Amino acid sequence: MRLTVLGCGRWGSFLLWYARRLGMEATGWEPAGSPVLGELTERGGNRYLELPRDVVLTDSLDEALPCDILLAAVPSQEWRGLAATIGGTGLEDTDLVLCMKGLEKGTGLRLSQVAEGAGLRPRSLSALLGPGHPQQLVQGIPTCMLAASADEEASRRISGLLGSSLVRMYRSQDMIGCEIGAAAKNVVGIAAGMLDGLGFAGLKGALMARAPQEIARVAAAAGGDWRSVYGLSHLGDYEATLFSPFSRNRAFGEAVVRGGTFEGLAEGVHTADALYSLAQSLGVEAPITSAVRDVIQGTCSAAEAVERLFGRPSKEEFQPDLGYPPRGACT
Amino acid sequence: MRLTVLGCGRWGSFLLWYARRLGMEATGWEPAGSPVLGELTERGGNRYLELPRDVVLTDSLDEALPCDILLAAVPSQEWRGLAATIGGTGLEDTDLVLCMKGLEKGTGLRLSQVAEGAGLRPRSLSALLGPGHPQQLVQGIPTCMLAASADEEASRRISGLLGSSLVRMYRSQDMIGCEIGAAAKNVVGIAAGMLDGLGFAGLKGALMARAPQEIARVAAAAGGDWRSVYGLSHLGDYEATLFSPFSRNRAFGEAVVRGGTFEGLAEGVHTADALYSLAQSLGVEAPITSAVRDVIQGTCSAAEAVERLFGRPSKEEFQPDLGYPPRGACT
Repeated sequence: MRLTVLGCGRWGSFLLWYARRLGMEATGWEPAGSPVLGELTERGGNRYLELPRDVVLTDSLDEALPCDILLAAVPSQEWRGLAATIGGTGLEDTDLVLCMKGLEKGTGLRLSQVAEGAGLRPRSLSALLGPGHPQQLVQGIPTCMLAASADEEASRRISGLLGSSLVRMYRSQDMIGCEIGAAAKNVVGIAAGMLDGLGFAGLKGALMARAPQEIARVAAAAGGDWRSVYGLSHLGDYEATLFSPFSRNRAFGEAVVRGGTFEGLAEGVHTADALYSLAQSLGVEAPITSAVRDVIQGTCSAAEAVERLFGRPSKEEFQPDLGYPPRGACT
Repeated sequence: MRLTVLGCGRWGSFLLWYARRLGMEATGWEPAGSPVLGELTERGGNRYLELPRDVVLTDSLDEALPCDILLAAVPSQEWRGLAATIGGTGLEDTDLVLCMKGLEKGTGLRLSQVAEGAGLRPRSLSALLGPGHPQQLVQGIPTCMLAASADEEASRRISGLLGSSLVRMYRSQDMIGCEIGAAAKNVVGIAAGMLDGLGFAGLKGALMARAPQEIARVAAAAGGDWRSVYGLSHLGDYEATLFSPFSRNRAFGEAVVRGGTFEGLAEGVHTADALYSLAQSLGVEAPITSAVRDVIQGTCSAAEAVERLFGRPSKEEFQPDLGYPPRGACT
């Protein structure tokens, strides 16, 4: 079984490590000149892990692409360009698995939609989602993850191939809800960081109860199953995203409030924008997403945003008689 | 507006402080000889807060009970005895609000059932649930809470009376789901502590995605609305219960695994037992609750329990076509 990982950052390098643990042939690809690739080639590892010697590292797509399973783990906003480069042929016998979490800025598209729009024609298309700390996994600390695909047979195949005593796999056929949920958790992570920055860490409890309702409404309005948001793709990633000091999105939100510096960009910044557009286009109110976006853009302070959220009238926790989630109702 | 709080521990003393902030007359009751009452009377406060001077503290139910709102905040397992002492008269003009989280050991009854069984006949019966850190609230850090009552008018009245810019109130008419959810969060808190003790903190993400499904199934089978478990009563309390170093239940779970000492008893120990019995009597599988109970009772180690949970076959994340939650299906 030949497995290739596109993108050898924190998560991609873990996937290479894990593929070898599963006994697969593993190849990692990064674009030519990538410093990440340089470090992995020279040191044989990075700050998270050591790669087995027999993992192939390359900057050639020609070398990387003949494979049985292709895992994509590049930055979400770079996915369209890479997918277009790969193009419409050569993946007929390859299961493509999206391993990143985001929505495309500007279009609000899910990454599987981007893949299809770019003309990719793999044997199957699925997503590997859920919580995973590479630092902990390489120490043997287990987790649960999700193989999502509209193609049930593919979700079974992928969960069978990638499951182990280290990674307990669940399956879902709801690509829409799982992709939106996975992307949106980065936005909630930024909100959590903002609360941390304000010294309001205790409000993360309320955030955890209210944000999934908002995201579930978006997922349902987009044609997904709202329940997916309450599963591993979104809620299951809250520990890693809302509470971990290692979460880039949480740290970014904290830095925004505290006025600190932040190196690079957190994925959730793009996703906040894309998710807001998506919610707008679907006619769904998304007050938390909207507040995060406003604070990032500097149109209101985090303290004002919290005050705005708290200033709304008291209400039923779940809207009765409207089914769940109530399409378009306010958080 | 006269408000009495039964039980002046950590949460009860906060409720007294908060009632005064709302401009109500506030009386706190503790049984005669209570060291908690002694400390509050002598020091005018405790380690969490200072009480305003005009809060009345008493060990006399006769003095405490003529009131408009009666908040109960005693240990859950002491509730039946106290309720029986109060008895069937004198509360005709009093809204009774249960502010504790638990199920009765031995019977698996909710605390509102215990109140009714003990013959209490208040004007209305509701519960005040959701996350609240007294240490943070007295510093002005806000939270969201829930007024639950089968009597909609009562939930509106209580949320109107107890809501403020410090405590944003939501309402629910699902007493059953909210009471079970609120009680069960202590069991999940113990599970989280066990994961911390094992060095598996990252697995709390998976726990957060899977445990609410289990509890939601119990709540639905008991006649409640499973959605309540995903609201403030249960999920909304995860920050305080699964992540806070101050959580007694989490700390207890950690101590069980690490073999440390633990002063007193965590409420979730009783609730694990009661919840297990309730799930059994309803025919609902509850593998996480069952594992927590087994580890507490010493019939298996925490590591074995995790292995047991991970050893089950891979499956769909949400059972399709069975509605949600799938009654009786396995986590």
